[in-house]
Amino acid sequence: MSLIVQKFGGTSVGTTDLIRNVANRIKLYYEQGHDVVVAVSAMGKSTDALVELAARIHDRPSPREMDVLLSTGEQVTIALLAMALDSIGVPARSFTGGQVGMLTNENNSEARILDIEADRLRTALANRQVCIVAGFQGVDKNGNITTLGRGGSDTTAVALAAALKADSCEIYTDVDGVYTTDPNKVISARKISYISYEEMLELARLGAGVLHSRSVEMASRFKVKLHVRSSFNNAQGTMVVAEEDVMEKVQVRGVTLKTDESRVSVAQIPDRPGLAALLFGRLADAQVNVDVIVQSTGTDGKNTISFTVPHKDLLQTRQVVNDFIQEMGAGALDVNEHIAIVSAVGIGMRSHSGIAAVLFKALADLDINIEMISTSEIKISVVVHKDQGKKALEAVHSAFDLDKPPA
Amino acid sequence: MSLIVQKFGGTSVGTTDLIRNVANRIKLYYEQGHDVVVAVSAMGKSTDALVELAARIHDRPSPREMDVLLSTGEQVTIALLAMALDSIGVPARSFTGGQVGMLTNENNSEARILDIEADRLRTALANRQVCIVAGFQGVDKNGNITTLGRGGSDTTAVALAAALKADSCEIYTDVDGVYTTDPNKVISARKISYISYEEMLELARLGAGVLHSRSVEMASRFKVKLHVRSSFNNAQGTMVVAEEDVMEKVQVRGVTLKTDESRVSVAQIPDRPGLAALLFGRLADAQVNVDVIVQSTGTDGKNTISFTVPHKDLLQTRQVVNDFIQEMGAGALDVNEHIAIVSAVGIGMRSHSGIAAVLFKALADLDINIEMISTSEIKISVVVHKDQGKKALEAVHSAFDLDKPPA
Repeated sequence: MSLIVQKFGGTSVGTTDLIRNVANRIKLYYEQGHDVVVAVSAMGKSTDALVELAARIHDRPSPREMDVLLSTGEQVTIALLAMALDSIGVPARSFTGGQVGMLTNENNSEARILDIEADRLRTALANRQVCIVAGFQGVDKNGNITTLGRGGSDTTAVALAAALKADSCEIYTDVDGVYTTDPNKVISARKISYISYEEMLELARLGAGVLHSRSVEMASRFKVKLHVRSSFNNAQGTMVVAEEDVMEKVQVRGVTLKTDESRVSVAQIPDRPGLAALLFGRLADAQVNVDVIVQSTGTDGKNTISFTVPHKDLLQTRQVVNDFIQEMGAGALDVNEHIAIVSAVGIGMRSHSGIAAVLFKALADLDINIEMISTSEIKISVVVHKDQGKKALEAVHSAFDLDKPPA
Repeated sequence: MSLIVQKFGGTSVGTTDLIRNVANRIKLYYEQGHDVVVAVSAMGKSTDALVELAARIHDRPSPREMDVLLSTGEQVTIALLAMALDSIGVPARSFTGGQVGMLTNENNSEARILDIEADRLRTALANRQVCIVAGFQGVDKNGNITTLGRGGSDTTAVALAAALKADSCEIYTDVDGVYTTDPNKVISARKISYISYEEMLELARLGAGVLHSRSVEMASRFKVKLHVRSSFNNAQGTMVVAEEDVMEKVQVRGVTLKTDESRVSVAQIPDRPGLAALLFGRLADAQVNVDVIVQSTGTDGKNTISFTVPHKDLLQTRQVVNDFIQEMGAGALDVNEHIAIVSAVGIGMRSHSGIAAVLFKALADLDINIEMISTSEIKISVVVHKDQGKKALEAVHSAFDLDKPPA
């Protein structure tokens, strides 16, 4: 018999009927003799409703009080799920973040988990109780309620699995698993059976939904095997595991498309050491999320630095960059909002050469012009014109045979 | 400067606008230099909504999980009220039952307060923060969330006032204070300025809304001065204080009418010691709430016992009494659902004789027949026909000059 951690997100527990469904699923595992620990999110849109309540009272509510408010959402779910299990004869016990000893730092609304005192869970499991844990929340060392920020419930599940040395950690969600690309954009997208932590991390950072990069980082650090699957069917989902456990050898695991970024270029930057560091340091201070960065040196010995930022950070970016240009005597700022970023991710890139060439050729064959290129150990990103983004995505997806079952 | 505990009930914090109103009221006290601790209930009908959610999942949910669920209601209010205070420049800090160290026994849904670790409150007050405490909730010694049952938020406020040795405890509600009788039934009802704990307790037990008897008992034990007043205006309300602090000397403080009870009579009970104790012991075991009890002995040496019970307990009562009659060889059971109980309450009864006579005469003058009489040290109750209940109430109210301002 094994110890299984399961996580059910907001859409999986959005109504009392769905909570009953979740209870029935848990019962199957429990009756097979497994020990089951469950992390849950707030019901459906209930967190949004709480945020709206707060917004009516304060335009910038204190993070401490916001966490007191928001943590009630998961607390409602744990009580209801424990009741639902009891109603079908499965002994269950709910735990708030504080009750499970989910100790975090004091960074309200973005807290980091420091430790879990798992003794109460172990006692409950020894008594053959299913443990229902409120996701997303913890307490700091002074007993203040904290929340973990985006992807928090996934992180709770992974932390529980790590602390309890669980045999597996199942992330139930509203999709079947991780896909080679977004099935809403490319019809031939396939579900991935196995993916490495590193690949999943890159895809998560590129916005490939499903898992938040934070939970993947933690899973990777503690070697927690994740199984991402649907709460609405019994199909096998995607296993997120260590590189050596990935069964299928491919060059590229998945491709992504982002269309919510702009390209920003600053020309004629004096070639002095530390200027790039200064610019990007200031952007980081202004909470601007910079993605692709490319620098080129002109014949005049001056540099042009181009980078991409989310549209929503553009105003902040203009301010920082204009100040920088004034101070440093750099040239003009150029912004292009009509771009798309296509990225290919795969640990196969480490051992296979020529992958970039395949990608460039796929785009060249369709007369798609590449405006920027950025590569990392397991990722290649290219910036193209926004109108050609979807065509580029499809081309790259099929260039690496992602539309065909793996060998 | 003094330390004030304030309690705001569900109707006073039913919307975000009302929560802002409450914040403004607190600010007035804070700016006068007072230390303020506030206990709050869940917003309006939000507890009902949570009960409804649970009902959709389980017809008899576990009290432990029910308390986990319901306690979220007050937790939402404390966060929002702390935000509302912050938004008008008043430093505030919210505390859940667990955070304030509200230690209770393990009796979920009806827990009793054992102790309060008030150190965290004292620290916050010393830092000139308003403390916002979730009413109705606590934790047992194992860290499980408990709730205090009906009147729980009032009890929280009184317990806080006792633990902190507060100068006063203000109970804000949707009425102006305690009245000589229900103003909806008797138009000449007057607001009472001062009332003793004992009188308030009797009135509360007789269903005179406003305060739950449990919070009055605790206030009496710890000599906490209560000020019951409206959250919608600034009028002086009713002070609930020790007998020696009551300013106005009157014979009768208030009168009440109950029409939701039935009279139950058991005739021909053998005159053996302990039979009455047995009968009422069994009724208590069946959770039947017995009010007025009268016993009379017939010429045949057999007893008739009559008592009143709430209509809702009638089915249970019939069962218990019929079993009793069978076993003991007693006579028939008679039930009269068409009764009203009129009661007069006042510590003046201790020192004044003839109060019962005044009451009986007032009813006799109107040809109202008295079916049962029960007296205690500070209370007289009479049972009359239901149709005459309101007339009897008015007669008793004016017989003791409760419709006129006190001398």
